[in-house]
Amino acid sequence: MKKIPIHTLRQPDVLSGYSGRKVLITGGLGLIGSNLALRLVELGAYVTIVDALLPLYGGNLFNISPAADRLKVNFADIRDINAMNQLVRGQNVIFNLAAQVSYTDSQKEPLLDLDINCRGHLNFLEACRINNPEARLLFAGSRMQYGHIKSNPVNESHTMYPLTIYGVHKVTGESYYNFYYRVHGIETVSLRISNPYGPRHQMKHSKYGIVNHFIKLAETGKPIRIFGDGQQIRDYIYVGDIVEVFLQAGIAEDVAGEAFNVGSGIPATFLEMAKTVIKTVGKGTIEHIPWPDNYERIETGNYVADINKARAMLNWEPKVSLTEGIAKTVSYYRRYHDYYWKTPGTAVEETKKLVLN
Amino acid sequence: MKKIPIHTLRQPDVLSGYSGRKVLITGGLGLIGSNLALRLVELGAYVTIVDALLPLYGGNLFNISPAADRLKVNFADIRDINAMNQLVRGQNVIFNLAAQVSYTDSQKEPLLDLDINCRGHLNFLEACRINNPEARLLFAGSRMQYGHIKSNPVNESHTMYPLTIYGVHKVTGESYYNFYYRVHGIETVSLRISNPYGPRHQMKHSKYGIVNHFIKLAETGKPIRIFGDGQQIRDYIYVGDIVEVFLQAGIAEDVAGEAFNVGSGIPATFLEMAKTVIKTVGKGTIEHIPWPDNYERIETGNYVADINKARAMLNWEPKVSLTEGIAKTVSYYRRYHDYYWKTPGTAVEETKKLVLN
Repeated sequence: MKKIPIHTLRQPDVLSGYSGRKVLITGGLGLIGSNLALRLVELGAYVTIVDALLPLYGGNLFNISPAADRLKVNFADIRDINAMNQLVRGQNVIFNLAAQVSYTDSQKEPLLDLDINCRGHLNFLEACRINNPEARLLFAGSRMQYGHIKSNPVNESHTMYPLTIYGVHKVTGESYYNFYYRVHGIETVSLRISNPYGPRHQMKHSKYGIVNHFIKLAETGKPIRIFGDGQQIRDYIYVGDIVEVFLQAGIAEDVAGEAFNVGSGIPATFLEMAKTVIKTVGKGTIEHIPWPDNYERIETGNYVADINKARAMLNWEPKVSLTEGIAKTVSYYRRYHDYYWKTPGTAVEETKKLVLN
Repeated sequence: MKKIPIHTLRQPDVLSGYSGRKVLITGGLGLIGSNLALRLVELGAYVTIVDALLPLYGGNLFNISPAADRLKVNFADIRDINAMNQLVRGQNVIFNLAAQVSYTDSQKEPLLDLDINCRGHLNFLEACRINNPEARLLFAGSRMQYGHIKSNPVNESHTMYPLTIYGVHKVTGESYYNFYYRVHGIETVSLRISNPYGPRHQMKHSKYGIVNHFIKLAETGKPIRIFGDGQQIRDYIYVGDIVEVFLQAGIAEDVAGEAFNVGSGIPATFLEMAKTVIKTVGKGTIEHIPWPDNYERIETGNYVADINKARAMLNWEPKVSLTEGIAKTVSYYRRYHDYYWKTPGTAVEETKKLVLN
C-alpha cells in the first residue's frame, strides 16, 4: 500500500486518499458495507463488493442502487477460498464485513456461526497472506467481545469475557487479525462496534438491529415490547458515523494491529430509544414484558463505549445524535419501504425502479 | 452424574468414586488419554476410548496394550457428529482430549487447527447438550492461552494474549466449555497444561513434546540443539501428575465452570532440562544455535504455573520431579522402544507381542 504522508492525518481532506484506490468490501451489500461502498464511490475509489447474499442476513442489492453502475458486485462467500484468492489481488484496502451477525442465531446454530465468523475470516486472511499481504484489512469487531461489563465507559483494555457464541467468535476473529499483523506483517485494524442502526439495515426480521426493528414495529402499528423497565443502557451508533471511522481506519498511519471501540460514547436507555422512535414515527406503543428465563446468562449489563482512542488516533468524532439518526432512518424507510419490507430484485432492476419513481 | 458427597473430597479414596462409572476419553490413544485410560481401568471404571488416529498426532494402540481387553476402543473423529451423538450417551465423565497439538503446525495449517480444536470441540459439546447434558466434561487447555507472559508465576487470572493460532483456538475452545456450563448447565472444567512429557508420548517427530524429543535425540546419538543460551524458563509436568489432576477434576464437587493451571509449579531452564536428559540417558551432546528469525513474534517468555488453585480446589499436588520423570520416561522407551520408533500394529497384536517378550 502506498503510504499516505503522516502530516495529512489530521487534515480534513485525508479521505481524498481514497481517490483512485482499489477497495474490496466483503458483506458489501449489508448495512455497513453498502453505506461504505456508496461513500467510497463518492470519494473516487474503485469499489468491488463481495457478498454471499445469505438469505437470513442483511445483504440487499437495492442498498447500492444509487451507485450500481459505478462499482462491481461479485457474488461469493468468504468461505470460498478460490474466489477469495482471486478477489483480494491488487486491492489496496479491504473492509472485511462479511459475518453472521445475530447473536441469538449463534446460540441456536453455533457451528454455522463458527463457520462464517471464524473459518470464513481465517480463510480470507490466508488468501490475503498468499496473494496480497500489502493490503490493509479492516475487521468488524463487536462490543459483544467484552461480554460481562465491569464498569462504564468501557475502553479497549476491558477484560473480554464473552457471554455468547457470537461474542466468543468475534474475539477469535479479532485474534486472527492481530496474529496476521504480528506474525505475517499484514496491516490489520479491528473496530469494535456497539449497537449500529440506520438506513440500509435489513427489515425482514428482528434477530438483530433493535433500533431498526422498533422503527418497523412503530410504522406497522405493532407494539414495541421492552424487557423489564427498559432502563438498561446501550450505546447506539448511526451507520454514517461508523462509515467515517472505517474510512479513517483504512487510511490512517500507525494504526496497524490496533483495535478501537466504535460507539457514540453517549449512554441511552432502551426505553429512551424506544420513545424516540415512537415520537419520530409519530405513532406506536410500548409494552413492558418480563425478562425471559435465564436472560442473565447472556445479558452483558449496561454498556457505553469509551471512544477516546478512536478520537485520538483516527481523528474521528461521531456526529449524528440518536434523535437525528432515528429521524434519518425513519425518513429513508418511508421513501424506500418497498425495497425492505418485501424481497428485492437485482440492483439494476431496483435502480430502474428508483429512477422511474 | 451422581453427586459425590462433599466430605469425601479431601479423603484419599475420592478416586474410588470412579469404580463402576462410565468414562469416555477422546484422544484416548494419545499421551494423556492413554495414561488416564489405564489408571481408570485400575480404578474400576468402564472406559471407552475414542480416537481418530490421525497420522501426525500421538495416537498409538500400543499405549493401551496393558489393558486392551478391559476397555473399548472406538475409532472416530470428534468432528463426526453422528458418531459423537452415539458415543456420549450414558457416559458419566468425559475427558475430551482429542486435539491438534502442534503449535508450529497451527501456523502452517491454521484452518486444520480450527477444524479440530474449535469445530471438533463445539461439535462434541453440541452432541453432549443434545444427548447427555448430565455428563461432566473435561477440556485440555494450554499455557499457550496466556501467550505473552507479563509476570511469573502465572495464575488463572493472567491476561490472555495468545501468540499462536493454536493458542487462539485453545482460548476459543475453553470459552465454549465455559459457555455450555453457563448457558446450558453442563458441568465443564478446563485444565491449562504447561509442558507435558512422559511415557506414551509419540516419538515420531519433533513438532511438539520437547522433553520426549530430547530423550530420543540423546538415545540415538544426535545432538540436542538449543536456541540461544537455553536460559528460557519452562514448567515441565510429568504425565502421571496430569492424569491425577484430571481424575480429581472429573469427580470433585463445586468446580464446574472453572479453569485450573496444571504444571509442576517449579521453574526449570531449557538447558537444565536438556542436561538432565543427557545425564539420565548417559550420553548426548548439546549445541547452542541462534534463535530463528522473528521468533520473538511467537515466543511467550518465561513461564511457571501458579498451581495453588488446583491444590486448593482439586486436592492435588504434583509428585514427580523433573529428574524422576525423565528417568521414568527414559526407562519406558528403553523397554518399549520398538513400539514408538516404528509404526505399531493393533492393540491386540501389540499385547500379544508384549506377553511373548
